[in-house]
Amino acid sequence: MTLCRVTGSVVSTAKIDALLYHKLLTCRPVEPSTGVPVKGAGEMIAVDTVQAGEGDLVLVCDEGNAARLILDDTTAPVRTVVVAIVDEVA
Amino acid sequence: MTLCRVTGSVVSTAKIDALLYHKLLTCRPVEPSTGVPVKGAGEMIAVDTVQAGEGDLVLVCDEGNAARLILDDTTAPVRTVVVAIVDEVA
Amino acid sequence: MTLCRVTGSVVSTAKIDALLYHKLLTCRPVEPSTGVPVKGAGEMIAVDTVQAGEGDLVLVCDEGNAARLILDDTTAPVRTVVVAIVDEVA
Amino acid sequence: MTLCRVTGSVVSTAKIDALLYHKLLTCRPVEPSTGVPVKGAGEMIAVDTVQAGEGDLVLVCDEGNAARLILDDTTAPVRTVVVAIVDEVA
Amino acid sequence: MTLCRVTGSVVSTAKIDALLYHKLLTCRPVEPSTGVPVKGAGEMIAVDTVQAGEGDLVLVCDEGNAARLILDDTTAPVRTVVVAIVDEVA
Repeated sequence: MTLCRVTGSVVSTAKIDALLYHKLLTCRPVEPSTGVPVKGAGEMIAVDTVQAGEGDLVLVCDEGNAARLILDDTTAPVRTVVVAIVDEVA
Repeated sequence: MTLCRVTGSVVSTAKIDALLYHKLLTCRPVEPSTGVPVKGAGEMIAVDTVQAGEGDLVLVCDEGNAARLILDDTTAPVRTVVVAIVDEVA
Repeated sequence: MTLCRVTGSVVSTAKIDALLYHKLLTCRPVEPSTGVPVKGAGEMIAVDTVQAGEGDLVLVCDEGNAARLILDDTTAPVRTVVVAIVDEVA
Repeated sequence: MTLCRVTGSVVSTAKIDALLYHKLLTCRPVEPSTGVPVKGAGEMIAVDTVQAGEGDLVLVCDEGNAARLILDDTTAPVRTVVVAIVDEVA
Repeated sequence: MTLCRVTGSVVSTAKIDALLYHKLLTCRPVEPSTGVPVKGAGEMIAVDTVQAGEGDLVLVCDEGNAARLILDDTTAPVRTVVVAIVDEVA
């Protein structure tokens, strides 16, 4: 799982049905100790499950079965989900 | 899941049966904020499921079970699929 | 599986239920031979299962099914877990 | 899935039974548009399923379940397979 | 799957039960054509299944289900295993 900063969202009309009612966030991996973007790590597109918004520090889980479990949809072809909003890195 | 730009397609005759009737697109990861290719990230070859074409901005899901769910074929040995055409990154 | 140094922990209130009672550690990949951080490898956020603490050298397993098996929770949407505290690299 | 050039093969005597009768190819990721090796991407060792040989441009699928489906062996501990010989990148 | 050179082993006392009786090897990815370490690829910690030792050239399979199949333990939370000792790269 990876610590990320939400940088925005993605709008799509032509998409598979399973993604119709989910907000898709663009998430940039950041270093936990400094909050600086991880060099060389591209942004991920993640399904929101905790009402996260732009600027939030979040925990992203990049695994298909986990994503389907969270969405409670065993047939959703997704892989990446936001599972927590992070308050503090100690 | 990753934001990509479709750059072309792949033609193959000697291939496994499960890939016979699917279009294979070459997809280059791009930064959501700028649209610039992600440095150091190689292109992926993805099965098209949303009628995407060269130049389109798309959402690529790189996970085997998701790919099989979309193709509705539990035995297809695939991993990477285009799941949405992206209209806008906000 | 990857050798990491525990660098701290993550505090979160808005999160999915499965993560409510687990400690989340920030883990930096290190080279086994030198203990130096692996260049270009971002930190992972892992669920603790062996009572590891800051500064410990640990073995991190980054796979969803493994994570669910360790937590003994087949529906937990997790992916990364600390599976051992490493005493020595020979 | 990744476009690769076959660069050679691997010979092994002490190995797990599931790999006894399969040819193992060394596959170097290449850029679809130029055929140039992807910088920073290491070679993969893949099980051949389409009679590919050195110098061939191939499509490699790096996922365990896909690999087991192709080999038609639900217990084979493999992950990477060649699934197509690529004739042309358009 | 990846070609690696075994560089040493890892000793651990506080670990999950499934890892109690398995030798853990540190494995550095190497280029098949030259044997030189892959730049930017960190070492992996893999469970030994073929009696490999320091200095051996091995094939490492980094996938959870494959690992559990080899160990013949459907509940082992592992991901990375050595599946073959490589005699020659042709």
